[in-house]
Amino acid sequence: MADSVLFEFLHTEMVAELWDHDPDSDPTPGGQKPSLSVLEGIGFRVGQALGERLPQDALAFREELDVFKFLCKDLWVAVFQKQVDGLRTNHQGTYVLQDNSFPLLLPMASGLQYQEEAAKFLAFPCGLLRGSLHTLGFRSSVTALVAALPACKFQVVIQKP
Amino acid sequence: MADSVLFEFLHTEMVAELWDHDPDSDPTPGGQKPSLSVLEGIGFRVGQALGERLPQDALAFREELDVFKFLCKDLWVAVFQKQVDGLRTNHQGTYVLQDNSFPLLLPMASGLQYQEEAAKFLAFPCGLLRGSLHTLGFRSSVTALVAALPACKFQVVIQKP
Repeated sequence: MADSVLFEFLHTEMVAELWDHDPDSDPTPGGQKPSLSVLEGIGFRVGQALGERLPQDALAFREELDVFKFLCKDLWVAVFQKQVDGLRTNHQGTYVLQDNSFPLLLPMASGLQYQEEAAKFLAFPCGLLRGSLHTLGFRSSVTALVAALPACKFQVVIQKP
Repeated sequence: MADSVLFEFLHTEMVAELWDHDPDSDPTPGGQKPSLSVLEGIGFRVGQALGERLPQDALAFREELDVFKFLCKDLWVAVFQKQVDGLRTNHQGTYVLQDNSFPLLLPMASGLQYQEEAAKFLAFPCGLLRGSLHTLGFRSSVTALVAALPACKFQVVIQKP
């Protein structure tokens, strides 16, 4: 039994439990469903905590691009047992992490009608990235995009101080 | 970064999120706080799913005691990276699993005043045991007892058909 299975089962059940049971609930002022921001918040705090467990030499690099390479490789392997498949940047603080087969989306059936459904599985990893970056000294906003399941992109915009 | 850390962080944050924010909320007819049964239910479904991933030879033994030895060793190692420290039974369907240093209680400070607080960290593992047993063909009820943190006991009563 791989530990990754345990994490994925727990994440799946947590999403099922926290996902908004009330279809009439009002979105927050930001337009997000409350359950999405709750899942994102859990991801953020787990990411913060994981960030503090990163090997010490990771804390030595402070170049943005090095930090992202680290997240794409070490963080992703630690959590999802695979590396991010592609990393692009405009060299102005925006980064796009491309995952061609994102583990948390694999159990979903593919099809256009499921893309909206995918949002609930992407809130936690968005928070995870934001929390890890926070511990590494970067404030950011993170959004996820799904083009064709189970592929997805995470867009990270670093907030300049 | 061990995967176990990831599971423990996620469990901690899930408990923090699901723990009853409303001190005035009514207990269920069974007298349990709603958030406890929610956590227990998540544990049950994770345990069910893990049970299905158990090595095939595990499904061959159907003697109760063998199943419990398996849970105390293989399941516990898979989830908590340690074995249960002691197993006792009255040979009439009641089993007590003793863990002298239960990982989900380790972050808690010790002290009598924290014992009630410990309940929220024991609901998930109670469900985990009940769910794993369910997949293995046994209906049960599981309760947890804390004598001195971070030690605890899980009492399992097998329900005869």
